[in-house]
Amino acid sequence: MQTYQRIVLAARPQGGVAPTDFRLETVPVPEIGDGQLLVRNHYLSLDPYMRMRIEDIKSYAAPQAIDEVMIGGTAGEVIASKHPKFAAGDKVVGMLGWSEMAVSDGSMLKKVDSSQIPLSAYLGIVGMPGMTAWYGLNQILQPKAGQTIAVSAASGAVGSVVGQLAKLQGCRVIGIAGGKAKCQLVVDSFGFDACIDYKAGNLFGDIKAAAPDGIDGLFENVGGVVMDAALNQMNPFGRVALCGMISGYDGQPMPVHSLHKVLSMRLMVQGFIISEHLELWPQGLSEIGQLVAAKKLNYRETIAEGLAAAPEAFIGMLRGKNIGKQLVKLV
Amino acid sequence: MQTYQRIVLAARPQGGVAPTDFRLETVPVPEIGDGQLLVRNHYLSLDPYMRMRIEDIKSYAAPQAIDEVMIGGTAGEVIASKHPKFAAGDKVVGMLGWSEMAVSDGSMLKKVDSSQIPLSAYLGIVGMPGMTAWYGLNQILQPKAGQTIAVSAASGAVGSVVGQLAKLQGCRVIGIAGGKAKCQLVVDSFGFDACIDYKAGNLFGDIKAAAPDGIDGLFENVGGVVMDAALNQMNPFGRVALCGMISGYDGQPMPVHSLHKVLSMRLMVQGFIISEHLELWPQGLSEIGQLVAAKKLNYRETIAEGLAAAPEAFIGMLRGKNIGKQLVKLV
Repeated sequence: MQTYQRIVLAARPQGGVAPTDFRLETVPVPEIGDGQLLVRNHYLSLDPYMRMRIEDIKSYAAPQAIDEVMIGGTAGEVIASKHPKFAAGDKVVGMLGWSEMAVSDGSMLKKVDSSQIPLSAYLGIVGMPGMTAWYGLNQILQPKAGQTIAVSAASGAVGSVVGQLAKLQGCRVIGIAGGKAKCQLVVDSFGFDACIDYKAGNLFGDIKAAAPDGIDGLFENVGGVVMDAALNQMNPFGRVALCGMISGYDGQPMPVHSLHKVLSMRLMVQGFIISEHLELWPQGLSEIGQLVAAKKLNYRETIAEGLAAAPEAFIGMLRGKNIGKQLVKLV
Repeated sequence: MQTYQRIVLAARPQGGVAPTDFRLETVPVPEIGDGQLLVRNHYLSLDPYMRMRIEDIKSYAAPQAIDEVMIGGTAGEVIASKHPKFAAGDKVVGMLGWSEMAVSDGSMLKKVDSSQIPLSAYLGIVGMPGMTAWYGLNQILQPKAGQTIAVSAASGAVGSVVGQLAKLQGCRVIGIAGGKAKCQLVVDSFGFDACIDYKAGNLFGDIKAAAPDGIDGLFENVGGVVMDAALNQMNPFGRVALCGMISGYDGQPMPVHSLHKVLSMRLMVQGFIISEHLELWPQGLSEIGQLVAAKKLNYRETIAEGLAAAPEAFIGMLRGKNIGKQLVKLV
């Protein structure tokens, strides 16, 4: 009997996420019925939103169930099909979870062309993270040429795209990232005008120096003191796209002290979740795809090898160990 | 020689505002020249925004200068005029400051009709505070019938109008105020559906109980823990009009811990300053004026007697001692 491996959520985190919160299982490869297809996943996408989903809290989506396959975006290949719209060999992206294989009825599964754009990129810059960047920048921050845009977690899968898109629109772009190496990458590979290392100990001063004319748009992925420092430098009528608050996902207190700036600078702060704006994905992904194919957008990937490496890679990503998009390669 | 009294800012506050930060002066009544008029002020308006203006900080307006007459809204009567558009006896509202008399060139001065609406109301419900309520509710919160609107500082000059306007639009309205007496007033006189006493020690639980279906729109005047508790109960896609953060005006730390709700509930938070939306004042004040004249809106005033009482009345207002609009009566 043929088998494959998958990872389920074994327990909810107590404080930080631990490898023991997950369990690797080996299960038989199922037969597919009419209207179904079998996918072999090549890549798993690891994303910060998963951290919130494994908690049992009221949020925008139901929590990940215990003993169920961990949710997550996937890119792979159809290896058997009794579905009229898919054939063996098709490259597909979907939400098939932390699993080497999965049966699908084709819903939420999308065929992609990997001849111009590598398959893995559909989980990153030409996928949900890229779309998140595109939406938050264009729909919420609405930047104008000459404005200053600040981006936290600037070397990440979302932040790196925000900055590059803003540069293409004629903005001055300031990144915030953790560590010298990431900051170097943000400037050298992603073309930001400056990048501030929040670990260097002079966050407020460094942001002031890097954005002497103030910040007009803030794309916030981190929260806490990083957000405080950026809010502190905002210009009147500035806009904030609140995309993530990864610094607080383990449940530690993460107070924001600069909220008075929202009042005194008449800021607009908008929280958003990209999965609620599906109507814009075709436009956004088409624009990003063309820029990637034309080599006008760069991206980086951090790739862990093999399904069993997923929990450690996920924990590492939450601690900022990745650069660019964090993936798990399965084959 | 005839004289009048005025109050100047003597020093910037060290921590909280003290009476010694102000100085009462007696000065001669000036002659007016061509194009000028002389106003005797009947009422001074005391407002929370003044607290920020007497600090030397970067904000939406220049700081109040030391040794200059304290800024502030006024309502009074023209007692001499060499200005073609004003005559002795005209009732006028303006920004003539903490002063029994003032010379004006007519700019920023508006004639009002005190036959249907009392003169003092033009500093409150039919003035800047009422306009603030109208704008924040209608332009930012954009309530729909059946929604739940929460208002902090609910017994104040702004909050009491927000709640009444929201009730007229078919909303469920929850107030937050300090003390049993204020809460009683908010429900009995201003018609809110419920009012939570933040001094009663169960803020989070009380808000949950009062807004069992969640909060769709929050009109925030206080900040800090009051804002935290309200944010905690917000519904998805809720809207927050950030009008004031009076709990932090003395410079004490006022961290907000629930900002993650802006993300998880996809909230929109908009800071605003009513003086930047002058184009809407005619519409807003006309609507409010009609409702006041028709007795469909109630208001309360707390009136201090005599110019010399202004500093203590101002400090009392910052500590929440007033109910409704805080005024100083000069004659």
